[in-house]
Amino acid sequence: MTATEVLNRTGTVGIIAGGGPLPEMVADAVVATGRDVFVIALEGFAGKAVRRFPHARLRISQAGDIVGSLRQAGVRDLILIGDVRRPKRFIRDSGFSNLWYTLRNFDVLRSGDAGLLERVVRLLERAGFTVIGAHEIVPSLVVREGPLGNIRPGRRAEKDIARGFEAALGLGALDIGQGVVVVRNRVLAAEAAEGTDRMLARAAELKRDYAAEHGPQPPKGVLVKCPQPIQDLRVDMPTIGPTTIEGAIAARLEGVAIAAGRVLVYRPEEVRRLADEAGLFVVARPVPQSAGPRPE
Amino acid sequence: MTATEVLNRTGTVGIIAGGGPLPEMVADAVVATGRDVFVIALEGFAGKAVRRFPHARLRISQAGDIVGSLRQAGVRDLILIGDVRRPKRFIRDSGFSNLWYTLRNFDVLRSGDAGLLERVVRLLERAGFTVIGAHEIVPSLVVREGPLGNIRPGRRAEKDIARGFEAALGLGALDIGQGVVVVRNRVLAAEAAEGTDRMLARAAELKRDYAAEHGPQPPKGVLVKCPQPIQDLRVDMPTIGPTTIEGAIAARLEGVAIAAGRVLVYRPEEVRRLADEAGLFVVARPVPQSAGPRPE
Repeated sequence: MTATEVLNRTGTVGIIAGGGPLPEMVADAVVATGRDVFVIALEGFAGKAVRRFPHARLRISQAGDIVGSLRQAGVRDLILIGDVRRPKRFIRDSGFSNLWYTLRNFDVLRSGDAGLLERVVRLLERAGFTVIGAHEIVPSLVVREGPLGNIRPGRRAEKDIARGFEAALGLGALDIGQGVVVVRNRVLAAEAAEGTDRMLARAAELKRDYAAEHGPQPPKGVLVKCPQPIQDLRVDMPTIGPTTIEGAIAARLEGVAIAAGRVLVYRPEEVRRLADEAGLFVVARPVPQSAGPRPE
Repeated sequence: MTATEVLNRTGTVGIIAGGGPLPEMVADAVVATGRDVFVIALEGFAGKAVRRFPHARLRISQAGDIVGSLRQAGVRDLILIGDVRRPKRFIRDSGFSNLWYTLRNFDVLRSGDAGLLERVVRLLERAGFTVIGAHEIVPSLVVREGPLGNIRPGRRAEKDIARGFEAALGLGALDIGQGVVVVRNRVLAAEAAEGTDRMLARAAELKRDYAAEHGPQPPKGVLVKCPQPIQDLRVDMPTIGPTTIEGAIAARLEGVAIAAGRVLVYRPEEVRRLADEAGLFVVARPVPQSAGPRPE
């Protein structure tokens, strides 16, 4: 479906809401487009904020009730948004239990697993819903090519950005992760299951150790983030937000580069303000959909 | 040069010794083959143990004196062995200063950088020495195909080993790092500049967090380590030792898999004992010299 086709659709939009600030933002944005929303607030994940919209509070294991509630609310288009990683408990009492079993056994630390999500999406589509990406209905959630704030990368940073996209795309093709920190052409830290925030904390630590031993501050470096080729961007898009910028500041990075149109930015105003105040660049760049390893 | 050719050579073997226990082990092993050794004990890196061999204590910056001492001792064959990472200070006072400058600026946290070592090796070869790998003269330093201790990987661990080699070779091809921890087909942690020990500590932490949240212990997983295709194995071979096994035990891994003949194992007896006691496998496997990204 093209972006225009999505925007021309009508009727109530269902939102299956996980944790974090995104579900509320998306619900507000959908309402602003003139369409109604109906929220499934997933227990254990969704915050209280989404309860101001028409909603049902259900557990992720209540597959039948979720589908029933959405149908009853007249939902055709469906958005899955918010954090469902690290489930608080192991749920085995109903329809989704196989999925959670899979999660627990094959995907130790994340449920952002493409295989699991694929199955959830397939199940919802078989139930008659059209799964759409939050960014398709709220295009402002993703950043278009160019700088987000006032700072632009210099020539040396551009080299680290290029190296970073090459490395991050390679990591993605290997199904390892979505981000790297590059300092003067070397990959200082590569993200796997720990997530971007922890990777940034590690980069900060490595740079502190370096400074403690060598006196001068090491070169700054950049964070580069882009989706893996196997990620279904409708339901599993890499995200940055104020926390990412705070992590980049703590690691004394020069800036952050993301894949244009393919990384979700929440609280973009705050991201911009934090970055500008700290003298950090945040820039979106077009990147190929997939890439091989670094040429020798 | 083939292994047999190396073993048939005669004359004093020069050893440029960095930190850690390997230089002494290598010196002992060379002496055991009937050849004399002459050690350059690099100040700030080499331990006291190597001073029981004929030696000169020189700074890494004293390129001319190093070459002079080696020539005076009649050295033709030269081994570079031991840790020269994280130099204690920024040395800019003589011949190697360009190299250290490069190190400081282009390779923030490691001097295990292939580019830097390449230049050092080229310099020594131009000075008339034949640079040979420690493992070429002491073949027992590397492990041949098969298990090192009594434990063998089970079927599920074999899958993680296969996934781990695929991921580690991919990381190597991208010039990111040499190791990964894989748990049930997912790459839990990928090694970049932080090194294997810190990556293992991270894997332990991620698994502890998981257990704290979910109750049951997560699946075990494996550490896989193999050289990058660009590494010159004569002077820069991945290493495991007792510390690696301790890290793997702390991360509750099932075992460790390394590239047969291409990873240096120090204190192999202790490695074997620790692993056997903890019920960990340590296994060496043949791996291709390089590999592309994971096939889709």
